[in-house]
Parts: sequence; structure tokens; C-alpha cells
Amino acid sequence: MITIGVFGAGQLGRMLTLAGIPLGLRFRFYDPVPNSPAGQLAPQVVAAYDDSPALERFASEVDVITYEFENVPVDAARFVEKFVPVFPPPLALEKAQDRLVEKSFFSDLGIPTPRFTASGFNGFDVPAVLKTRRMGYDGKGQFIVRNMDELSFAMTQLRGQDLIVEELVPFEREISIVGVRGVDGAVAFYPLTINTHHEGILHRSVVPVQVHPLQGLAESHARKVMEALGYVGVLAIEFFELDGQLLVNEMAPRVHNSGHWTIEGALTSQFENHVRAMARFPLGSTNPIGAGAMVNLIGQIPPVQDILKIEGVHLHLYGKSPRPGRKLGHVTVVAGTDDLLMGKVEKIESLVCRD
Amino acid sequence: MITIGVFGAGQLGRMLTLAGIPLGLRFRFYDPVPNSPAGQLAPQVVAAYDDSPALERFASEVDVITYEFENVPVDAARFVEKFVPVFPPPLALEKAQDRLVEKSFFSDLGIPTPRFTASGFNGFDVPAVLKTRRMGYDGKGQFIVRNMDELSFAMTQLRGQDLIVEELVPFEREISIVGVRGVDGAVAFYPLTINTHHEGILHRSVVPVQVHPLQGLAESHARKVMEALGYVGVLAIEFFELDGQLLVNEMAPRVHNSGHWTIEGALTSQFENHVRAMARFPLGSTNPIGAGAMVNLIGQIPPVQDILKIEGVHLHLYGKSPRPGRKLGHVTVVAGTDDLLMGKVEKIESLVCRD
Repeated sequence: MITIGVFGAGQLGRMLTLAGIPLGLRFRFYDPVPNSPAGQLAPQVVAAYDDSPALERFASEVDVITYEFENVPVDAARFVEKFVPVFPPPLALEKAQDRLVEKSFFSDLGIPTPRFTASGFNGFDVPAVLKTRRMGYDGKGQFIVRNMDELSFAMTQLRGQDLIVEELVPFEREISIVGVRGVDGAVAFYPLTINTHHEGILHRSVVPVQVHPLQGLAESHARKVMEALGYVGVLAIEFFELDGQLLVNEMAPRVHNSGHWTIEGALTSQFENHVRAMARFPLGSTNPIGAGAMVNLIGQIPPVQDILKIEGVHLHLYGKSPRPGRKLGHVTVVAGTDDLLMGKVEKIESLVCRD
Repeated sequence: MITIGVFGAGQLGRMLTLAGIPLGLRFRFYDPVPNSPAGQLAPQVVAAYDDSPALERFASEVDVITYEFENVPVDAARFVEKFVPVFPPPLALEKAQDRLVEKSFFSDLGIPTPRFTASGFNGFDVPAVLKTRRMGYDGKGQFIVRNMDELSFAMTQLRGQDLIVEELVPFEREISIVGVRGVDGAVAFYPLTINTHHEGILHRSVVPVQVHPLQGLAESHARKVMEALGYVGVLAIEFFELDGQLLVNEMAPRVHNSGHWTIEGALTSQFENHVRAMARFPLGSTNPIGAGAMVNLIGQIPPVQDILKIEGVHLHLYGKSPRPGRKLGHVTVVAGTDDLLMGKVEKIESLVCRD
């Protein structure tokens, strides 16, 4: 019986558990916040990430440790690595946690990024984007700067933090690739997902029937990243698409919101593939079943009756109480054609209140 | 937050939980056997079915009570019905628990059954089948009788129990229908499943791409049963197919092993549809995604690595320790054609040891 330890007990941990239980896997979670979504399904240790005795005890109770969010302190990951294998490697956390380190890492691998600098606005045109180097997510910790007033406002808001300036890319759309790598070096990639954001938060992901012309390029970028990191598990990379080019925005060393459509939309979900990699099982097929889509439920949950009335949709709630801007669940749908898919997506979206 | 109480905490309860959690439902189980498969995922009350205070307390903690096996004592179901809705109605348990009552019930509804009698072998040709009226499952409590010696052996084995004699039907195959009915009377049926048994235990269920010519007839039989019982939830009925006719063998007032293929093989699984009915949510589409199949893992589990190596299969383990004849898990697969499907089924079966 393999027990997987997970740092973080949010909805991603919950969905890892739902995918892993049928494979005979057990789970234990570690999260400073009690009664988290995954803790409703499996034992959760409530302790801080710098509590060495708690970390050591946790490590002694599991066969492998992974994470379900990328801001787990690297020190905690490195500490438990003394006792059990930790996948993805803590190096991946380190690269993902600092936008400057992350973009430099991509750049060094020859993967195109938007222009960036940590040396202020010298030589940078406006509009540009000012971001914190650390702890940014869901559009938090970043400001578009078009003039001196906006710069001054942003600097006040972000005061005391290390910053990075990035070129504002006039991208046509944001796309992401989700892939998985096994301990044996085997890799598999899901089809590219087209993402739409609303107020900085992912609102919807769509995977059309037709393979995206940049699929091969995105896979080759992702493969480079995985190999450079000795990666094991699911990795997501977000790109801006511009003039047939891909510019990397950021990566997440974990299962990713833009991969939730795979639960019903692919032969093996991202969650199952991540736990397969953790358990050293063979990876599962990433083939899509049809066109697939996912719509996030943010801030509030429409009446469940109304969602379930739409034929063929799948509801995934996270067991969280409503709060503005909070991801509370998502709805997925699979269809044989893009038109059928988008018809369903529109029905779902008509129920979703944007707060 | 709706909490569903379930009598029985076996694998069916476990799979109900895995289907219901994403819909925001909670579960509580009641089972005299501790540490049961569903109890690994949700709170389990360990108490006897005649423990009235425990039953009353259980009823007070849930919004609806259902069962995951059909031999729950009818008295327990009727007792808790004083406090909360109980679906399917206890009447369905009553009919399903006694083969004589069950066959008479079908007969009265005009649904053909094999000839049967509770008055001994008078007027019955051999071979015939001698069965206990109660508590039979997985081929237990029944004997084929071809001559006086076999009759005498069977009578000794079944001594002290109420018996029923049934015609031995030279059926071509056993097929089953799984359907669901909502509190509002809405019904939906999955495609007919072709079942293969081994030593009395279901070994495999297959749903070909082509709709079975007797689909409509089976649905009309099932609809009659549901309406007669005021049924709510998933119902399974097993038939013998003979010369283009259907003879009903038995029914199960619960989710059923021959419906496990629906987890990945249909738009909404039997487990999700049962909990939707319990929660008074709209029923989900029962449309199949392609040809589907399920192979049971009985007695022992082949190496998980070998199972997961087969592309596109889905493994479902129940968290039970191996024992001869015990259902430990199942494997499902979906394919675009029957040939592709059966190719996968053969690969799965080559790993399955029949003990």
C-alpha cells in the first residue's frame, strides 16, 4: 500500500485523492490551514512549514511527498527530501517561485519569454507590467504601467517587495500545456488548452478537436524544462500566443487549473497521471476523448440543479465556502465537435455570475 | 449541504462516495463490519441493524437513507423511514430479498420469468435449479439438480431453509439493464449489458456499440417494476436471453456490478445517477461514450503496473484484502468499436487469474 504525502490540502489535493483512491493509493496532507478541501477526504496534518518535528513525522508516514501548490517553502521540501523521495524535485519549486529566476531559467534553455528585467524601467517602453518576483498568483501582485502616475501607484502598492518589469505582450490568446514525466523519463502531453481569464483569474479553458499548430513546439519547450529539472510528475506551462510564436509566461510544478478538463475529457486525467508518476506506475494515455472545456465557478456557486440540468456536464465542487474571487469548483464538458462544445459552454456560462 | 446515509459500507458505497463528493454531497455509512471500503472515505457507524438507538441517531444525522446491498433487514429500513426519506422504498428490499416473492411480483406484472414453484419438484422436469429463497448472491445457495443423487445432496446442503425450484433455462446469454428513477418520476436507462459469469460470480460485462434489439423490451419491463414500487434511485434487473425473449432472473434495488462500466463508459455513471436521485438533483444522461466493458478482479489483484500498462484502461480497487472468490476491484475500458474493445478486454483478462 503506497501512501502519497501532499504539501497543501486544497482542491488540487482533493482531486488527486479522488483520482488515486481507485488505484489503491492512500493520501496524507500537510497544510497549516485546518479543514481544507482535501482534508475532508484524507488525514490532514495541521502544522507550519517550518515545524521540523512535524515535517519529519509526516515524512515517516508516507512513501513519497509531492505538492499541490507552488509556494510551498523550498526549505520544507528540501528538509523532507532527507527522508523520502520528493517529486517534483524541490529545484522546480525554486525556479517557479521567483519570476526573475523562472524567466532566466527559460531564457537559458532557449525558450522565448517576454522581455524582462529586474533593473527598473531603464530602456523599457510603456506600457509594461510591474510584478512582484514572489508569491504572485491569479493576477495578484502585478500592475500594468502606462504612465508615471500608474508607475507611482504600482510602486506604492508593491513597496518593499522585489520586483520585475516585463514587456506587455499584445498576445492573441493565452494557451497552456500540461504534461507529465515518470521516474523512468517517459513523458506524455495533453493537447494545448486555450485559456480565458477574467480579472486575472482563469475563467475558462477550451480544447478544440483540431490539434493546435503549435502543439509540437509547446511540447518541445516543456520537454526541455522537464529534462533540465529532472522532473517527475505533472507540469503546466502557460504561454502567450503571438504571431504564431509562443512566449512563456510561467510554469506551475503541479497539476493545473487549465488541466481540469482532463478529468472527463482525456483517457487519463492530469490528477491520475500525477499520482501514477508519484507511485512509479506507468503513465496513462493523454489522448482527448473529444473537444473538451472547463468553466470555473468563482466567488459563488450557481444552483446545482441548474448546472446538472445541462446534458452531459460534470460538476466538481471543492467543499469551500463562497468568498469573492475564490475558486469554488468547476464544470467540465466533452463534445464531438467544437460547435456542440461551445453550445454547452455558453449554457454553463449563462449560469456563472462573475462577481 | 446534503448528507446521504448509506446502509452498507462496501465497494458500492465507496464508489457512490467518489461520485457524490464532486457534487458537494456528504456521506455517512452504517455497517456492522468495521473498516469497510466506504468507511475509508467517509464516517462509518459500526452497529447492528437491530440497534434501534443507533439507527435513530444515524437517521438524525443524514438527509436521506439508501442502501448499497439488498440484504439490509427490511425492518431497519422501515424503522428509519419514520425519521427520514428512504430510497429506494423498503418495499423494493422486501420484494428483492425473497426469490419466491420476487418472481411472483414479476409474474404479476406480466414480466416473463423461468417457471418456478415453492411446492417441491412435483410436475417439474430435471434438470432444474434448487435455490434458497433468501440471502443468495454470487451463485451461493443454489444447485443444479439433474437426478435423485444431486437432489439429495442439494437438500442436505440447503437443509432448514425455505427453497424455490426453478426451471433451468438453456439461455444464450445473461443480460442486464440498469436504470434510474428520480423522485419526480423521470427515468433513464443505460444500454443493455452482456454478462459472463465464472463459478456463479460476475466475471465480465460488455456493452457493444450497437443497441441490443431487446433494449426497448427490457426498458419497458424495468419501467413497470419501478412504477409498481414507487422506485427512486438506481435499479438493476438481470435477464436470461433465450430465442429473442427475456426471462427475468432477479433484480437488485441498488447500483450493480454490471453497471460499473458506466464510470468511464457513460456520460453519467450509475453511481452519480443514484446520488443525483437521492439528492433530488436532475438525472444525468445515460448515453454511452462508446463500446464499454468491465472485468472484475476476483480473489487476487494482478500487479497494478501490468494493468496500467494497457492503454486506456481504468483501474478501480476497493481497498479490500485478497480472499478467494472476493471481489477486490474491477477494470473498465471504452473503445470506438467492438473489435478494439474486445482486444483490450483480452489483454485485461490475460492478467486476471481465476482462482
